[in-house]
Amino acid sequence: MNISKQKKAIVLLSGGIDSATCLFIARKTHKCHCLIFDYGQRHRREIRFAESIAQKTKSPYRILKLSLPWGGTALLDKGKRLPQDRRLSRIGKDIPPTYVPGRNIIFLSIGISWAEVLGASYVYIGAHQSDFSGYPDCRKDFFEAFQKAIIKGTKAGVEGKEIEIVAPLLDKTKSEIVKMGKRLGVPFELTWSCYKGGKRPCGRCDSCILREKGFKEAGIEDPLIK
Amino acid sequence: MNISKQKKAIVLLSGGIDSATCLFIARKTHKCHCLIFDYGQRHRREIRFAESIAQKTKSPYRILKLSLPWGGTALLDKGKRLPQDRRLSRIGKDIPPTYVPGRNIIFLSIGISWAEVLGASYVYIGAHQSDFSGYPDCRKDFFEAFQKAIIKGTKAGVEGKEIEIVAPLLDKTKSEIVKMGKRLGVPFELTWSCYKGGKRPCGRCDSCILREKGFKEAGIEDPLIK
Repeated sequence: MNISKQKKAIVLLSGGIDSATCLFIARKTHKCHCLIFDYGQRHRREIRFAESIAQKTKSPYRILKLSLPWGGTALLDKGKRLPQDRRLSRIGKDIPPTYVPGRNIIFLSIGISWAEVLGASYVYIGAHQSDFSGYPDCRKDFFEAFQKAIIKGTKAGVEGKEIEIVAPLLDKTKSEIVKMGKRLGVPFELTWSCYKGGKRPCGRCDSCILREKGFKEAGIEDPLIK
Repeated sequence: MNISKQKKAIVLLSGGIDSATCLFIARKTHKCHCLIFDYGQRHRREIRFAESIAQKTKSPYRILKLSLPWGGTALLDKGKRLPQDRRLSRIGKDIPPTYVPGRNIIFLSIGISWAEVLGASYVYIGAHQSDFSGYPDCRKDFFEAFQKAIIKGTKAGVEGKEIEIVAPLLDKTKSEIVKMGKRLGVPFELTWSCYKGGKRPCGRCDSCILREKGFKEAGIEDPLIK
């Protein structure tokens, strides 16, 4: 990939370890602008954490309010039960109730819109398919197909100034991401993974379980559960 | 296409002739749910017209607020000049300043999200490429590529319950759409095409010029400019 310091990138930032690490990868070579979505999550904590990460790296950022009033997912609908205490061997084997219909398609589409106006050449997303293969919109074949659609459907694409979707963590495991984040100086104390918005991570939801596994396998202490 | 009355469809409704006609086509065979976007348009008139059309057909509808704060288009940014008094031969030959970066990609993505939750099998869009080939996100090759992306990126797609993007007007001219709308009983007095939000259409923007041409060629009187 021919990248240069001057080229701008949009980074989709969620407040979790993956997108934070993604930002630290992107900022090595690009001027990054962070896009944070306020889409009716169960709690505000991840938005505040995402903001802190953007501020920490002195990256300009926008928080975009987006209503998806039809719910259909345990991540937005407090009436739906979040899976908890699932065995590791179960996680990622099916499409879980935390799947948000169309989420990455929508987030990337909006990121592309901003990229086009800003003249950014890249949209970074921290998705990875290895631990979380249950989410169809985190898979390589989705990103490849979506890339083709935006080349056809944008002025930038039609004029040959392609905006590239970059998912640098796609084939990494959580522990590889933790190690990479550590090396790049990601402030893990400013990342939030838990699906719930308590004062401390619940330790029982899929996201907490995968985070714990990631830190453990990486041999690194998680500052959030000290 | 194997369609049945029972199958639900989402129809993207803008308040113009094209999407209104599209709704009247879709409702022949489907239970339609209309999706109207309030995305910072220069005026509220087209949203009110879209609502009226949905109500007229007794279709359930949602108005979704969406902020695209980066502008980059004369349709959202009042500081940018709308093209006016352009010759017909010029319109559609370039990408005009009214192009909204990523618009149909975003609208379709959100429509797909609702379709997936609702169990709808189709998302209808009134785009057409013949008069307005200047917009890259109104072209057949974009829709085809986007269709592939959503098959890969949604639970519905992965499970074989594909949500189909339907653009029934894609190869129609404006006058063919007017004739078709007339035949289907579209209440043209409840459609708004003008990019400006005056009491009456300006008659000078690209959209007014194309509407006028459409009605004229169809030999039908436009109730808005009687």
